[in-house]
Amino acid sequence: MEQRPISQAIIKRLPRYYRYLGELIAQGVERISSNEFSKLMGVTASQIRQDLNNFGGFGQQGYGYNVKNLYEEIGKILGIDRVHNIIVVGAGNFGRALAGYSDFERRGFRIKALFDRDPEKVGHEINGIEVHSIDEIQDYIRENNIEIVALTVPKAAAIDLAQKLVGTGIKGIWNFAHTDLKVPKDIVVENVHLSESIMRLSYNIVNHEKMER
Amino acid sequence: MEQRPISQAIIKRLPRYYRYLGELIAQGVERISSNEFSKLMGVTASQIRQDLNNFGGFGQQGYGYNVKNLYEEIGKILGIDRVHNIIVVGAGNFGRALAGYSDFERRGFRIKALFDRDPEKVGHEINGIEVHSIDEIQDYIRENNIEIVALTVPKAAAIDLAQKLVGTGIKGIWNFAHTDLKVPKDIVVENVHLSESIMRLSYNIVNHEKMER
Repeated sequence: MEQRPISQAIIKRLPRYYRYLGELIAQGVERISSNEFSKLMGVTASQIRQDLNNFGGFGQQGYGYNVKNLYEEIGKILGIDRVHNIIVVGAGNFGRALAGYSDFERRGFRIKALFDRDPEKVGHEINGIEVHSIDEIQDYIRENNIEIVALTVPKAAAIDLAQKLVGTGIKGIWNFAHTDLKVPKDIVVENVHLSESIMRLSYNIVNHEKMER
Repeated sequence: MEQRPISQAIIKRLPRYYRYLGELIAQGVERISSNEFSKLMGVTASQIRQDLNNFGGFGQQGYGYNVKNLYEEIGKILGIDRVHNIIVVGAGNFGRALAGYSDFERRGFRIKALFDRDPEKVGHEINGIEVHSIDEIQDYIRENNIEIVALTVPKAAAIDLAQKLVGTGIKGIWNFAHTDLKVPKDIVVENVHLSESIMRLSYNIVNHEKMER
């Protein structure tokens, strides 16, 4: 079977399906009709069908979706049926927040270590996770099978670090710095640009006011 | 002139244009051809033209873009030519990180106060910003012209708080809780769902590996 590339719009929706299915499981729901699921998610049933058809489709005519089954299948598609080792660079408030976020562990993302350049922080533990010196980062990655590096450092440091990470074998950068990182294609970058997020909020507020007038 | 609704895809790109133009200004660049700008941004010149045409277009044939002018115009479109008052609920690591992020202030987002339900935190200052009791939030919003509330609290607390915020006059919620908030249409919600972000990263890593094989 030839694989069509999946659009980023679909990939954006998959984790949301996964979240809702997880909530249904927690509520003890075993199956759900495509109509109910569509109402719950606030998207059309045909949108859901189309999205899932990209991966072979999972619904059955007259039955709907088996919640647990669909949850597991989407988990596999998202690659969270296995453990991903992560390190966090920057032991400031953001780094601490990530280190304290127990939800990640449940979803297969294991934060193995924090890194900082401040000698005062190195050697301490945050939420049971040790802070290492930034000088050790390349060796640590190679020796500990690290797949993802979260960068919670200022822009200039992030650009500099991204270059150091090339060739270490990491597969992804989770970038919280307010810049676009230039790295070879074998490293995937996922950006969390909070400044851009709040500007979108501002735009939508201002535009909403205009429409009300 | 009839206003077409602007797609969220364009709204997603505007803050990025704004960021690059800000960097050009910092470098002393006064004008840029549409080709150079497109190379810098990694999008086609026609994409940029189309996006900006939604707002009347700003380039001139044979001249390109006036950097400072375009920066200011996009700032106006994004509604960041005026100050937005924000409060942050949750004085944990995420709340502290937002309170310490000086970039927001520069862009017209002023964090006026933090709120927490922990009496140990109330009355203290974080980065010069006072922590108030969550019980005072509605009065505080009304008396201080608060437009945006950032929610950095667990899911159940966020759902509960969103209901309390209805009718206070706020215009937007910046939601960091891992849930979709149901609020009336006059309140805009911008979600920052970190769990979904890291699942997208995981998907792209796993899918990238498959393509390499």
